[in-house]
Amino acid sequence: MTATASLPPLDLVDLRKKVDGCLEEYLALKAAAMRRENLPPLPLQVLHDFVFAGGKRIRPLVCILGWYAARGQGETGPVIRAAASLELFHTFALIHDDIMDRSDTRRGRPTVHRALAARRQHRAQHHKFGESAAILVGDMAFAWSQAMLCDAISELGQQASALRVIHAMHCAVLYGQYMDLDTAEHLTGDIQRALTVLRYKTAKYTVEHPLHLGAALAGSGPEVRAALSAYALPLGEAFQMRDDLLGIFGDTAVTGKSTLDDLREGKQTVLLASALHRADAAQGKLLRRLVGDPALGEEEAAAIRTVLTETGARAHVEALIDIRRRAALHALDNGPFPAAAAHALREVAHTLTERTR
Amino acid sequence: MTATASLPPLDLVDLRKKVDGCLEEYLALKAAAMRRENLPPLPLQVLHDFVFAGGKRIRPLVCILGWYAARGQGETGPVIRAAASLELFHTFALIHDDIMDRSDTRRGRPTVHRALAARRQHRAQHHKFGESAAILVGDMAFAWSQAMLCDAISELGQQASALRVIHAMHCAVLYGQYMDLDTAEHLTGDIQRALTVLRYKTAKYTVEHPLHLGAALAGSGPEVRAALSAYALPLGEAFQMRDDLLGIFGDTAVTGKSTLDDLREGKQTVLLASALHRADAAQGKLLRRLVGDPALGEEEAAAIRTVLTETGARAHVEALIDIRRRAALHALDNGPFPAAAAHALREVAHTLTERTR
Repeated sequence: MTATASLPPLDLVDLRKKVDGCLEEYLALKAAAMRRENLPPLPLQVLHDFVFAGGKRIRPLVCILGWYAARGQGETGPVIRAAASLELFHTFALIHDDIMDRSDTRRGRPTVHRALAARRQHRAQHHKFGESAAILVGDMAFAWSQAMLCDAISELGQQASALRVIHAMHCAVLYGQYMDLDTAEHLTGDIQRALTVLRYKTAKYTVEHPLHLGAALAGSGPEVRAALSAYALPLGEAFQMRDDLLGIFGDTAVTGKSTLDDLREGKQTVLLASALHRADAAQGKLLRRLVGDPALGEEEAAAIRTVLTETGARAHVEALIDIRRRAALHALDNGPFPAAAAHALREVAHTLTERTR
Repeated sequence: MTATASLPPLDLVDLRKKVDGCLEEYLALKAAAMRRENLPPLPLQVLHDFVFAGGKRIRPLVCILGWYAARGQGETGPVIRAAASLELFHTFALIHDDIMDRSDTRRGRPTVHRALAARRQHRAQHHKFGESAAILVGDMAFAWSQAMLCDAISELGQQASALRVIHAMHCAVLYGQYMDLDTAEHLTGDIQRALTVLRYKTAKYTVEHPLHLGAALAGSGPEVRAALSAYALPLGEAFQMRDDLLGIFGDTAVTGKSTLDDLREGKQTVLLASALHRADAAQGKLLRRLVGDPALGEEEAAAIRTVLTETGARAHVEALIDIRRRAALHALDNGPFPAAAAHALREVAHTLTERTR
């Protein structure tokens, strides 16, 4: 890609590498600080392994693009560091989520509580140790994300507005997860309720708030943020619906996640709500009997998949994703964004909604 | 108490009321914000009930006294709000701690995970819901404590140094808890190791960092902080040793905590390390057999208490507390603190080490 005045280079692969570089550097600094105090190395080792086992760095990339979209000026270093802190926050959210869901694998590897339990396998209560230590390692990731963010934004002079966005992001994802949990055992065909949960848990958290953080760091006003939201919310919803489809119909070898976890947990997705809404008596009975059974196996999962397909719910969700991707792309065509930023955000919209992992 | 130039009024009861007022106001603001967004009220209700079920507000009070000790000038409002945010952080730490320890009661009431489970008793998996929702409510308390703090300190112009102290505090308590957890199943007579854990888990977190936060907000330099540490570290250690004694020999009706939890958990206290260090073969065998047994009952607890007393460990810990209280008081006599602040800190030293709850 050639740099010109109208199209500065926004190479997503390169930005991703820079984000990873910041994370690597920050965690190394922390590890050195802990060594100096003779504190145990295992929490940071496990955290490092998890952060670098994969992850698409969606939130940091979206944050950086928000800064470009809002015509940010000046050095990008602190912006990239602030953006990278979102990945540590996301790591915290995933670690706690995996404990709550009792998931065994993530990114094709043992989840953090499983990895910690494995390190203390000689103990009678190593599972309990793994879960408790993972709560703490998650808490540490949260604390480090805040410290990394505060440090980065102190160089940018937009602290108050950036911190407001970050706090809104924390509340959105934690309330989204809480609502997810609170509806998990109560299966209904209420598509609107499922959409509300995913708006908080994912759309705001994954796309809207990171974009707003970038825009805040660029010193943008409410118009730019509103234009970014018009892109972010439909895209974030489409992203989660794609995730829900992959969680049940995906290829485990590609996604790194079991296709049984969401079904065992009884996760109240739009897909499931749509299926319950469309199901005949027998199909509804099958879903209510099997979804949420923690002992559910491959055979039962296959039966559920058949119902999700035959009721038309799967096709319905594909259509909902398509409508939202179009809305997001339309918002870019009409937004006040520089061409290079709009181009990169378009790329992100396709990646998030057409992905296979 | 009359205000004079040499002795401004430092009424701890009044300061405590002001801290509670800030917490009440902040949580009410958050509840209103969540209502406006149609988010579920239960997380904040449960958090509010827990915060106001008791708690001595030690960390906020110590923080405010740190500000006075460092001769802080100007409006106290933002200082008290910053100090109050430490109570929300402490609430987060307690909620997660109770999940890890599987404690049923705290402050004479059900712990947060128990209270949440009770609100969803009709569900098949209400215990799992309680634990998962409590992880999230703890995370919310952490997020709110950060937002409340950042908001308060933005008015005080000492953000960078205050945030450094807060981050050190987060790391200290989380690593302290991690070390506590990691040594729990491995009983030894290593008193030094037990002292290291309590230095991080309690002494730094409960006394040193809150004092340093207050001093940072007053714009103090390294000398004042060093003088505060000379008071804080021995006092914090004495405080935790008193807590450990109360956890086993305390009156449940007064402490609000079960006297079985610490023994069942196999908490590696200085008291236990001292007993193992002093025990004869039979006493050592009894401790190793009973401490850490999750099913331990009143009879076994009584047998352990007898060993803790007869080995002289209980008296040893009382002596260690006494040495540390004296060291803390001595540091006050020699510190560069205004008389009123030194007087209030002296009161705190007695309260924390001679308490019965």
